Amino acid sequence: MKKELLKHINLPKDLRQLKVDDLSYLAKELRDFIINIVAAKEGHLGASLGVVELTIALHYVFNTPDDLLIWDVGHQAYGHKILTGRKDIFETNRQLNGISGFPKRSESEYDAFGVGHSSTSISAALGMAIASQLKGENKHHIAVIGDASIASGMAFEGLNHAGVTDANLLVILNDNAIGIDPSVGALKQYLTNVKKGTEKQDNIFEALNFNYSGPIDGHDLPVLLSELERLKSVKGPKFLHVITTKGKGLKQAEENQVKYHAPGKFNAETGELNTTSSEKLAPKYQDVFGETIVELALKNEKIIGITPAMPTGSSLKYMMEEIPDRAFDVGIAEQHAVTLAAGMATQGLIPFCNIYSTFLQRAYDQVIHDVALQKLPVIFCLDRAGLVGEDGATHHGVFDLAYLNCIPNLVIFAPKDAIALRHIMYTVQLGIDFPIAIRYPRGRGHLLDWKQPFKKIEIGKGECLKKGNKIAILSIGTMFKAIEDAISTIDQKDAIGHYDMMFVKPLDLKLLHHIFKTYKAVITIEDGTIVGGFGSSILSFASTSNYKQKVVTLGIEDKFIEHGKIDQLRKLQKLDVLSIKKELENLLLFVESS
Amino acid sequence: MKKELLKHINLPKDLRQLKVDDLSYLAKELRDFIINIVAAKEGHLGASLGVVELTIALHYVFNTPDDLLIWDVGHQAYGHKILTGRKDIFETNRQLNGISGFPKRSESEYDAFGVGHSSTSISAALGMAIASQLKGENKHHIAVIGDASIASGMAFEGLNHAGVTDANLLVILNDNAIGIDPSVGALKQYLTNVKKGTEKQDNIFEALNFNYSGPIDGHDLPVLLSELERLKSVKGPKFLHVITTKGKGLKQAEENQVKYHAPGKFNAETGELNTTSSEKLAPKYQDVFGETIVELALKNEKIIGITPAMPTGSSLKYMMEEIPDRAFDVGIAEQHAVTLAAGMATQGLIPFCNIYSTFLQRAYDQVIHDVALQKLPVIFCLDRAGLVGEDGATHHGVFDLAYLNCIPNLVIFAPKDAIALRHIMYTVQLGIDFPIAIRYPRGRGHLLDWKQPFKKIEIGKGECLKKGNKIAILSIGTMFKAIEDAISTIDQKDAIGHYDMMFVKPLDLKLLHHIFKTYKAVITIEDGTIVGGFGSSILSFASTSNYKQKVVTLGIEDKFIEHGKIDQLRKLQKLDVLSIKKELENLLLFVESS
Repeated sequence: MKKELLKHINLPKDLRQLKVDDLSYLAKELRDFIINIVAAKEGHLGASLGVVELTIALHYVFNTPDDLLIWDVGHQAYGHKILTGRKDIFETNRQLNGISGFPKRSESEYDAFGVGHSSTSISAALGMAIASQLKGENKHHIAVIGDASIASGMAFEGLNHAGVTDANLLVILNDNAIGIDPSVGALKQYLTNVKKGTEKQDNIFEALNFNYSGPIDGHDLPVLLSELERLKSVKGPKFLHVITTKGKGLKQAEENQVKYHAPGKFNAETGELNTTSSEKLAPKYQDVFGETIVELALKNEKIIGITPAMPTGSSLKYMMEEIPDRAFDVGIAEQHAVTLAAGMATQGLIPFCNIYSTFLQRAYDQVIHDVALQKLPVIFCLDRAGLVGEDGATHHGVFDLAYLNCIPNLVIFAPKDAIALRHIMYTVQLGIDFPIAIRYPRGRGHLLDWKQPFKKIEIGKGECLKKGNKIAILSIGTMFKAIEDAISTIDQKDAIGHYDMMFVKPLDLKLLHHIFKTYKAVITIEDGTIVGGFGSSILSFASTSNYKQKVVTLGIEDKFIEHGKIDQLRKLQKLDVLSIKKELENLLLFVESS
Repeated sequence: MKKELLKHINLPKDLRQLKVDDLSYLAKELRDFIINIVAAKEGHLGASLGVVELTIALHYVFNTPDDLLIWDVGHQAYGHKILTGRKDIFETNRQLNGISGFPKRSESEYDAFGVGHSSTSISAALGMAIASQLKGENKHHIAVIGDASIASGMAFEGLNHAGVTDANLLVILNDNAIGIDPSVGALKQYLTNVKKGTEKQDNIFEALNFNYSGPIDGHDLPVLLSELERLKSVKGPKFLHVITTKGKGLKQAEENQVKYHAPGKFNAETGELNTTSSEKLAPKYQDVFGETIVELALKNEKIIGITPAMPTGSSLKYMMEEIPDRAFDVGIAEQHAVTLAAGMATQGLIPFCNIYSTFLQRAYDQVIHDVALQKLPVIFCLDRAGLVGEDGATHHGVFDLAYLNCIPNLVIFAPKDAIALRHIMYTVQLGIDFPIAIRYPRGRGHLLDWKQPFKKIEIGKGECLKKGNKIAILSIGTMFKAIEDAISTIDQKDAIGHYDMMFVKPLDLKLLHHIFKTYKAVITIEDGTIVGGFGSSILSFASTSNYKQKVVTLGIEDKFIEHGKIDQLRKLQKLDVLSIKKELENLLLFVESS
């Protein structure tokens, strides 16, 4: 039966006009709405489908936006966005100048807190709850957090503090036994036992002073409504355990939850994925990592693979399938992942710790204190470095070069292509006595024929890609391709030299001296922040060595970069082929006139 | 009865020759040894006194160094050091070129893992245990962790992973209900209930799949020995709950555990502290913070104080005493502390989040993702910035300028003295629409008369301290004093200009243009890493603006700095008065000759 309820709902106040009996119809419409748009426009699917009823119930029972609602990680918030004033622009989701794929304070007063990284919601909601208490305001503060996210240390810290306050905080555990990949860890097993009823109700959350209720069926609207209504009058920190099915309402998404987390385009009617043949495409960098580590680990039994909750996204899943006893998904626990690797390295193992660039920010101290200070040979593979596209400001991996650059003992390498990634992985597993960070981007490279025989890379040595006589371009990593393309369109090709420095740290000083003695101007290009990054090291080299020529440093400007296609963002950051070309032409004019 | 047992013990193998009945005599001797040396040489006292019996029992029962023993945080490891080959050099503890105050891998094979920051031990030990398993080695792996440290998120991550392995891991909870300050949080309350017997044995650690035993008396050697012996044959992850008294064996240290955590010099016989009158000394920076926040918060009810487990060290304790409902010790939970502050800031409060510079590394992502990205007005007060002295490599706050510099939206300020710290605190609580990091050093300033009337500081504006005509010194923070002293000893005083830039970010561009147009050379001086810090921003400014004069950047070199007195370390880093003087004289010669 089609009631066309969603059509008339722009804000939660409209929703609250509905009769309780109509809410299940609305749930169906909301689910269809999400499926239809994500099918055509891409985005995160499964998480939002799983919380359709919960979303409706929360906005129905609570007085948002006065009551403050935080969605942990945030890619479960599509229903929330659609019901809070963004239905008509939802089709711009994750597009340049469109709405963000995550809740965002500047976008809506209903987005109480910006979320993109996991496990922040309890701390933020507790801060708000304490604020309301101090201000004498009678608000509700709700954090909705998944079972993968609640196992992260930060969430525990939030619970541990909340438990000794009398703040009006409601933590809702959205327990679907999966994050992007299936949840792991002892807490997950414990929650499974709670669901089965084999654990007593006097449980771990009650031990932390929370008033626990549940588990309840998160797709049963009457149960949800009455429980939330009841909890409104319970004082102090409360914990509601809700069981949901990720991908609920779309058969394929329920059955293949990993694939349908963010499935790309698909047929909204049948749920079938649009499979474009990738046979002729160069591989994704993550797969170069994933296939190469298996190839190496089959021969070198010291090699270990570690991922904090990204077996699929990092492609460590290949090793987890082939060599399960040496490949570890430790859950959303970046801090633990890094120090676990450090512990292994002390015993002569060779841990490859694969973490998205943006998520290594969550283990910064462990890199410094546990790895670099002890000079332990941990190999960090930083996937999703540089601009990541549609995930936007919370996810760009643009700070890594700067925040790693200042750490003593650490080697930093950026492969220019899949072959270089392969070679450096081969090189480091031969044995190193220092830690190294290898950073590579999201998406595909440009080489089809990448499975070349392994070759050893000399640590700290850069490479001349093309000689010139006026301007030297110093590049890091995969930026080299746009530069190559830019040079090819320029008249004075001969004037331009191009060097892949390969190592941000240590710099190839011999090569740098040669370059600064040869060229009239130097330009550095990187897909990380200009502040503190590769270019800043070159400026420092030039200053220390008393070179006086013009040095131009290109990279990511000093502001947070929004979401959009990577190409679009590169253009905005003047890191695309045309912008580089223009920069080179200007610099040629400058060199010739000076 | 004096047996002189310790005299004959250099290594654990000697210890293992003793009869069980003699161990309590050894405990007495070891305790006296620690008290005598710490009384004369200073250091951490209480934690090590509390684990004397546990230390002896562990080395007696387990086969160290083959069995791997990790002391969380590490300042409880004095007894361990004394029993593992360092008795005769223990008097060099924490001194330049002496042994470290923390376990350190390069110092001894008995120090299985370097520890200085808390809550890393479980992850590291698990990594080792998995390594032994893979290598088919039959070792024991033991993490000794305090009740304050186990409440930190990272420790939970380690437990959560360990619980789904069958690794041979023994986690020993050294429960003395106190870290540096008394432990806080729901888990602490829970542990108290476990001790009282009001919680069932089927507890939170068993929920995480650990084989739990205890609580047992950590000062009862026979009980400790038999329980550790029993646990040697228990498979998989094990958890032993041990109750100890911090400061055990020294009456004053037991009664005043906070004071005797690291009491400075004291009388070994009586336990009385050496009280040197501090009446005529300038105040510690932490007290300038602690007193000023109370002064401001009494008038501005929006002000909140937050510390992760450092109420005494940060002097937030003054506010916790005077305005308890707005001052929060959240325990060793830096991640939570930052995002809690962010949550409060969304509701119009003005949170001062006080974290040691080195510990903000533990909340780096929260600064970026939860605070700066949302441009929330959180005020970070970074104590212990720069070189901290005897705590050494794990604790120096020298990376902050570099790792914060690359974060958009963030303002970075370094007060040159107590008055500037006071004024910036006053300024920001008037209302700001950005986050700010205020970083100041450990120890005392030089101003006695610091309680001046509040004055507003203009954001982003530097100050000329002294005009000159040849060389401009650009300094940040309290480095200004050594510079002032250096200038005063130089013949060509008039040649030297001195500017306190005050803000590392945003830079005062107008002042910089004036400086670069006026002077023949520029020298930057900071007590942070040269890589990526303040000097690097000045180089970038000069390059972008096409200034060609010599720029010298002084600061902390690109290596980990060991322990020693701050003065000694500054000398080694050439940041002392004499080194600065020489640098200035060299630069004057260079300027005159070019």
